Amino acid sequence: MILRLDRLQTELPPPSDPDPDGASNVQELLGGRFGEMSTLMNYTMQSFNFRGRQGARPFYDLVANIAAEEYGHIELVAATINTMLTGASPPADGRPPGDALEGVKSARNTQHFIAGGQGALLQDSAGKPWNGDYVFSSGDLVEDLTHNFFLETGARNNKLKVYEMSTHPAARALTGYLLVRGGVHQIAYARALERLTGADLTKMFPTPRIPTEKIPECQPHIQRGEHLKLYRFSPDDYREIVAVFNGPHPETGEDLQVVEDRVPEGAPWRDLPPQPAVFAPDYAPEEISEIAQRLRQAAGLPKEPTGAVASDGERGVVDKVVDKLT
Amino acid sequence: MILRLDRLQTELPPPSDPDPDGASNVQELLGGRFGEMSTLMNYTMQSFNFRGRQGARPFYDLVANIAAEEYGHIELVAATINTMLTGASPPADGRPPGDALEGVKSARNTQHFIAGGQGALLQDSAGKPWNGDYVFSSGDLVEDLTHNFFLETGARNNKLKVYEMSTHPAARALTGYLLVRGGVHQIAYARALERLTGADLTKMFPTPRIPTEKIPECQPHIQRGEHLKLYRFSPDDYREIVAVFNGPHPETGEDLQVVEDRVPEGAPWRDLPPQPAVFAPDYAPEEISEIAQRLRQAAGLPKEPTGAVASDGERGVVDKVVDKLT
Amino acid sequence: MILRLDRLQTELPPPSDPDPDGASNVQELLGGRFGEMSTLMNYTMQSFNFRGRQGARPFYDLVANIAAEEYGHIELVAATINTMLTGASPPADGRPPGDALEGVKSARNTQHFIAGGQGALLQDSAGKPWNGDYVFSSGDLVEDLTHNFFLETGARNNKLKVYEMSTHPAARALTGYLLVRGGVHQIAYARALERLTGADLTKMFPTPRIPTEKIPECQPHIQRGEHLKLYRFSPDDYREIVAVFNGPHPETGEDLQVVEDRVPEGAPWRDLPPQPAVFAPDYAPEEISEIAQRLRQAAGLPKEPTGAVASDGERGVVDKVVDKLT
Amino acid sequence: MILRLDRLQTELPPPSDPDPDGASNVQELLGGRFGEMSTLMNYTMQSFNFRGRQGARPFYDLVANIAAEEYGHIELVAATINTMLTGASPPADGRPPGDALEGVKSARNTQHFIAGGQGALLQDSAGKPWNGDYVFSSGDLVEDLTHNFFLETGARNNKLKVYEMSTHPAARALTGYLLVRGGVHQIAYARALERLTGADLTKMFPTPRIPTEKIPECQPHIQRGEHLKLYRFSPDDYREIVAVFNGPHPETGEDLQVVEDRVPEGAPWRDLPPQPAVFAPDYAPEEISEIAQRLRQAAGLPKEPTGAVASDGERGVVDKVVDKLT
Amino acid sequence: MILRLDRLQTELPPPSDPDPDGASNVQELLGGRFGEMSTLMNYTMQSFNFRGRQGARPFYDLVANIAAEEYGHIELVAATINTMLTGASPPADGRPPGDALEGVKSARNTQHFIAGGQGALLQDSAGKPWNGDYVFSSGDLVEDLTHNFFLETGARNNKLKVYEMSTHPAARALTGYLLVRGGVHQIAYARALERLTGADLTKMFPTPRIPTEKIPECQPHIQRGEHLKLYRFSPDDYREIVAVFNGPHPETGEDLQVVEDRVPEGAPWRDLPPQPAVFAPDYAPEEISEIAQRLRQAAGLPKEPTGAVASDGERGVVDKVVDKLT
Amino acid sequence: MILRLDRLQTELPPPSDPDPDGASNVQELLGGRFGEMSTLMNYTMQSFNFRGRQGARPFYDLVANIAAEEYGHIELVAATINTMLTGASPPADGRPPGDALEGVKSARNTQHFIAGGQGALLQDSAGKPWNGDYVFSSGDLVEDLTHNFFLETGARNNKLKVYEMSTHPAARALTGYLLVRGGVHQIAYARALERLTGADLTKMFPTPRIPTEKIPECQPHIQRGEHLKLYRFSPDDYREIVAVFNGPHPETGEDLQVVEDRVPEGAPWRDLPPQPAVFAPDYAPEEISEIAQRLRQAAGLPKEPTGAVASDGERGVVDKVVDKLT
Repeated sequence: MILRLDRLQTELPPPSDPDPDGASNVQELLGGRFGEMSTLMNYTMQSFNFRGRQGARPFYDLVANIAAEEYGHIELVAATINTMLTGASPPADGRPPGDALEGVKSARNTQHFIAGGQGALLQDSAGKPWNGDYVFSSGDLVEDLTHNFFLETGARNNKLKVYEMSTHPAARALTGYLLVRGGVHQIAYARALERLTGADLTKMFPTPRIPTEKIPECQPHIQRGEHLKLYRFSPDDYREIVAVFNGPHPETGEDLQVVEDRVPEGAPWRDLPPQPAVFAPDYAPEEISEIAQRLRQAAGLPKEPTGAVASDGERGVVDKVVDKLT
Repeated sequence: MILRLDRLQTELPPPSDPDPDGASNVQELLGGRFGEMSTLMNYTMQSFNFRGRQGARPFYDLVANIAAEEYGHIELVAATINTMLTGASPPADGRPPGDALEGVKSARNTQHFIAGGQGALLQDSAGKPWNGDYVFSSGDLVEDLTHNFFLETGARNNKLKVYEMSTHPAARALTGYLLVRGGVHQIAYARALERLTGADLTKMFPTPRIPTEKIPECQPHIQRGEHLKLYRFSPDDYREIVAVFNGPHPETGEDLQVVEDRVPEGAPWRDLPPQPAVFAPDYAPEEISEIAQRLRQAAGLPKEPTGAVASDGERGVVDKVVDKLT
Repeated sequence: MILRLDRLQTELPPPSDPDPDGASNVQELLGGRFGEMSTLMNYTMQSFNFRGRQGARPFYDLVANIAAEEYGHIELVAATINTMLTGASPPADGRPPGDALEGVKSARNTQHFIAGGQGALLQDSAGKPWNGDYVFSSGDLVEDLTHNFFLETGARNNKLKVYEMSTHPAARALTGYLLVRGGVHQIAYARALERLTGADLTKMFPTPRIPTEKIPECQPHIQRGEHLKLYRFSPDDYREIVAVFNGPHPETGEDLQVVEDRVPEGAPWRDLPPQPAVFAPDYAPEEISEIAQRLRQAAGLPKEPTGAVASDGERGVVDKVVDKLT
Repeated sequence: MILRLDRLQTELPPPSDPDPDGASNVQELLGGRFGEMSTLMNYTMQSFNFRGRQGARPFYDLVANIAAEEYGHIELVAATINTMLTGASPPADGRPPGDALEGVKSARNTQHFIAGGQGALLQDSAGKPWNGDYVFSSGDLVEDLTHNFFLETGARNNKLKVYEMSTHPAARALTGYLLVRGGVHQIAYARALERLTGADLTKMFPTPRIPTEKIPECQPHIQRGEHLKLYRFSPDDYREIVAVFNGPHPETGEDLQVVEDRVPEGAPWRDLPPQPAVFAPDYAPEEISEIAQRLRQAAGLPKEPTGAVASDGERGVVDKVVDKLT
Repeated sequence: MILRLDRLQTELPPPSDPDPDGASNVQELLGGRFGEMSTLMNYTMQSFNFRGRQGARPFYDLVANIAAEEYGHIELVAATINTMLTGASPPADGRPPGDALEGVKSARNTQHFIAGGQGALLQDSAGKPWNGDYVFSSGDLVEDLTHNFFLETGARNNKLKVYEMSTHPAARALTGYLLVRGGVHQIAYARALERLTGADLTKMFPTPRIPTEKIPECQPHIQRGEHLKLYRFSPDDYREIVAVFNGPHPETGEDLQVVEDRVPEGAPWRDLPPQPAVFAPDYAPEEISEIAQRLRQAAGLPKEPTGAVASDGERGVVDKVVDKLT
Repeated sequence: MILRLDRLQTELPPPSDPDPDGASNVQELLGGRFGEMSTLMNYTMQSFNFRGRQGARPFYDLVANIAAEEYGHIELVAATINTMLTGASPPADGRPPGDALEGVKSARNTQHFIAGGQGALLQDSAGKPWNGDYVFSSGDLVEDLTHNFFLETGARNNKLKVYEMSTHPAARALTGYLLVRGGVHQIAYARALERLTGADLTKMFPTPRIPTEKIPECQPHIQRGEHLKLYRFSPDDYREIVAVFNGPHPETGEDLQVVEDRVPEGAPWRDLPPQPAVFAPDYAPEEISEIAQRLRQAAGLPKEPTGAVASDGERGVVDKVVDKLT
């Protein structure tokens, strides 16, 4: 079971210049073989299928808990894609449908507009759907961990390349954050293998051989120590990760830490504006708002929506640090 | 973000007679077009892509919150498949590998053994991987809800058929529970459409046209009112589902309820035994236990694993009611 | 069994400026999940698999008959794609192959040229092949109809978006026609569900929430009442559709009509010119013509080809009305 | 455009012993790479994409007309699969769902029951969906015909093997008919290539090298000359096939014939009985019948359904000849 | 470029009892994600894409040379599948086709008979085709080697399980050989990573944690030192593998060796008998033999075929050792 | 078994202007349905599955030997793609990752950069992976040969179109060579069919109907007689191809020849430069070189790498002839 928090793990900038081709490439980080959907579902399925978990509890807890963090990563990638697509079709002008989408007819992934509502799809950068064959869950603990270390390595490679391919602020904020957090998972699986077999995989860091700290957009997160921490994403469970996730960081030598009592503060989602040309959430979104307002009233809810969303007026802490660096 | 609870939404029986072909069919409920992975990821992606969510907050909250419950459903299906596969290979006998898997060489899905460790795969009943094309997220609210109503209808059909195809206790416990909870989601989407358009879809219930209450394994859940309740799967968010999910149940006329302050009590996962013939979690699982024990000690953790698992000695409430009925 | 008529259901304009990227997007209406191949094969397979059809004859007739109309729709989309691709490679110049296709090397779908002869492929807008998983045929009548209503809703969404993405005259003529005819099918399935369950789905119209009549290219067809008529596409069969398809149009209130004695007049196919750079129908098409001429003579056929094709000199009725409107 | 006739091209026997595994293999003839869906859609797409068709009219007519006959073939395969699956679940007994499908839990294709209503799926014998990549439409006439000849060769191979694998009467009636008719198409494409290039492909007959006449179930059709005739499946079009389809039959030397004025008499579809365990057409089919009856009455239709279905009491001509031979 | 030798890397036993379901599982070792087609094409593509290969020559040579050995492995798996399928249909009896394949209608993979001629398909154990997404070729040397180590680990897992699932002599001879040779490749990639990064991956051996030497069918190969040798599969190239492949074997401590001057002696292919029921190589194979005989004579070739095939009369060395052990 | 030669079958020009979209189209010749991977694996699998091969030895030898040549063709296509991608990202500048890939963010296939290291992928021009369903291996010799003739025909069509779409020197050198060599294989299969059945398929040449000699880039190869020769790609085997491959060339009437004692001289691979922006072979390739140097020294290898690579200073014979012609 999960409890869902209506909040992102890190702040993303508001929509700026739309970038459909950029968004098509960021899809690799969502639905690609090494995307966040793959990390999420690999660790999730491995935790479901874990046999003899009491005997191997620290390892079970590690895999199950990282799985929980990955859910927040698919959120972030999806939010980034939505941000980059916002504005790619014109706002409503009260007129009947015309040629509102002609400007994107040569976009790399026109299904963002035809199938989706300028939103994320469960596809990679080539428009190929994510699929269950990307999940490896052999049940053999050493082998599953070997896979996970390799998967995080491939994921780091892909994040670095999407970083290099994208200057859109949302893509940069995303990759800066994911590189730091993915790095922690890469370390966690290397350490787990070391604990089980004695093989010192941490000598392989960094792979690709460029230190994370050289990426400007990673700096704010590193400065807050995010490259060292494994959060426990559960009210009461997964308490034994500390038995595996400890010792020195392979690159910096600093002590790795388990954060027991809180998850990343993060930020509320931005309420991305309707895109009526693609009928998201409707050709005439105000009708839905009126109905919603009536329903909320009838249910005795407050007049203003109870859900929190980011206010574009205030910029977050991360943004400000990034500002200084760039 | 999510917080993960190491607990199942309902209790499943312990392993009994292994049933590999049965497990291969239950896979449809995990990785089939209408399986729980589909309901999970459809509602999850729709919530990520929801534009203008403040204006449509009750609908956003509904979709996002049901998505959260679905996570618990993929857990249940995976646990059932693992249960049904347990025992299909012999226990370790200290000898080198022999013909431990010959007995399953004609099983419908031998990848349960070759690729997996007698565990669930992200596939359907034909061994085809779940894929991202099963996700529909148009951004158009009325259309997405229409899809969701149809999806739940197809899911109910598949659950009923897997029920009829399986007498294994785990499959029956699973389908009995899912039919009741899926029914609630089917109602929720029908009601949401009614609120937005005025169309009374509740007249279409039940589809297929067999009342849920006729299924014996559904009875315990119905008796506890589980067919009427929508749980809020979040500490603080998704408070506006109550604006949509209300009014009479389409079949019984009873009042629908939102449960604000707790999620289903459920039950701890069972700690399914190792299956050394498939190296899950190892050819010699006791070695892993010893390492784990040492690591836990070094980390100052208690001697006994801190995670809770079901004790086979005690049978759960649901089981007892089922006993009476069957 | 079918009898095939060498004629299109509506007239399409002659080739004008080639538009390969536009054609790549129109492919969604042929081979996409909600394309015409999907509507064709869903209803076709449902009719093949219909059990107890005498008892449910009006519903069987409805599904089987709409399937027959859909065949004409895949023809129209394919003809449009061919039209839009015509001229994208230069005419024959008697010289050996050179760089005739260099101008399209960055086209979205270069397989139009490499695999095809500047013709339609059975793919969607991302170049992914149509596949049999898009067919839903559960055998449960209420469920199949629910699916069909949802399918037509998704199809309408996609047609609207392809309309907005394309200003090419052929794409506009196509979508203008399909929106009107697909709307009739959407109504037919909603009405069928109403007849079976009492649920008034017609309140959900239009979805997406933009009336069809606002699309200029739909107007000529609406003015001829095409939004109200269901043609019987059979010499003698499917006579009971009238038992389901009746009552008021959900948007306009006008009476729905079954046309028993004729199918749409339509128009002959245009004879699209050879594209020798892609060897369609040959590198030297005149050789084929000569052989064909000899064979026809030997068979005692008239000197001129017996098949009718559209003459570019005369513009059709529809074109003329469109002219006025635009 | 097509006109659809509610009639099969040949008669199939009534359901007898259900044969789910047999049906799973017959699927190859529907949705396999060389199945009837492939022949249908290859020739259909080639006809849509045919450029310069006036100049090559006899060849266009040939391809377009054979495409029309193939539609009748997917009907026949689907009807066969439905026939073989009938009875594999028990008739309704008025009780709630139990274990009606347990008997088929180890069937090769359980999606016949879970996804379908004991009906045909658009899959091959391995449960893999038919897909658009099976369509070859290069636009190059010689090359498309070369493909078609190869496709018919592969199709003949598959029909022969499904014949050898199946003794179920419906499968035998199907393959007996399809072998004869597919043989005609194989000849037609070989002859067309001969007309265009001078290459005498007819020397390659038969491939595989077993004469069709040795198959007992082919005999009734051969005796009626069905191995020599190409029917024109159109009221008025495709008149020039006679310019290509003529000359001696490659195996027997008899004259090939074009039948201009009629299509095969065939037989009405059988009205296969409901299978309530899979909700086809409903859990309680009689309710649908009552509603249908009311609707027909309201529409002024006769009391008895107007559609013709085969009467199990009378056996067809083909059956009787088969009787004698076996 | 390659030179092909008409010889297998190790001897396989002659056909004995046919085992179609066994063969369907062995397919995993040919076309599965971790099958030999994957090892072949991963290393092959990595060698094609290797940039800066002069600077990294020992590593290039290693990858390119192992790729060459893998070709011999797909041969062996295919030969095994053919062996296991031989005899599953009856020999020719001079009669027309009857029900020769009825006995295999419930086989797990009937496409062995329908699509193939009782021969190997490029599929996995679920009948899913091998595909290019199984190839990982990032160009980053450390990452590609990490992948290769993981791939060999997964491959070893699958071989062990197919071993346990199969008692057919051909499957046992195959897996006994592949486990030994795959083990060498697993070591080679671990050593290469150690050379590049210093990480001692050899501590992870064996994975799964069962020593290869415990498998009786591996013993003959181990006794000949095959677990220590890397053959250079090239007349003149790939001379620098020796710079990487050296040092102690991770399990036994023995010295690893590069064999420079010869490849494994192996054994000729067996000439598996025709299976006329599936038309392999023909319905009447003797006709082909006669034609071939005439052609060879006309070309001045010797009267007896020049190609060498295994004689069933003599059993090979490996077989004899296996005999003793079992 | 194979022996691998570190050499290409023909010379390719050095990298010049990078052409990512061009490279994306050349992928069709590697991983497309009619690409070289298909020809390689079709003939390879057919040779593995060949039953009764002694009786049909000349045909077995033909198929097995052409398979061996095809391996060299996938090398050539991969090398071409690598050449065309070289330079598409900037050289290393010692700075941290920036926007090195922004220039290719709208490329047709961005996975060349994200998944690969500016190297070839096993995909077609639409980014769809090559898959095992492209392999046809029925075991029926006449049918397999019919397929092979058709496959080569489709391959020739695709090569001609990629030629017309690409003016990049590497693509032109590639297609010029492949058209000539593929033409030989097309003839070989036609002749084999003629030998077996008497059907004179050579009358169908050329298909598409444009003589190969009209392509300037084919001229150098034709002038050296490469359109007439079948090389025996084996030290000792496949000696009976001469029994089939003989007689006149269908277009020129010249005598076909079997080259027994040598394979094409070809050319060494070019050592394409690192592309550090995509980490190929590393972010800092010089580190790998230093390690390699040390390892080679320790192994007693010469100081200079032993492998031969093309020197960019000298242009090959083929290039010079092409120079004159263009």
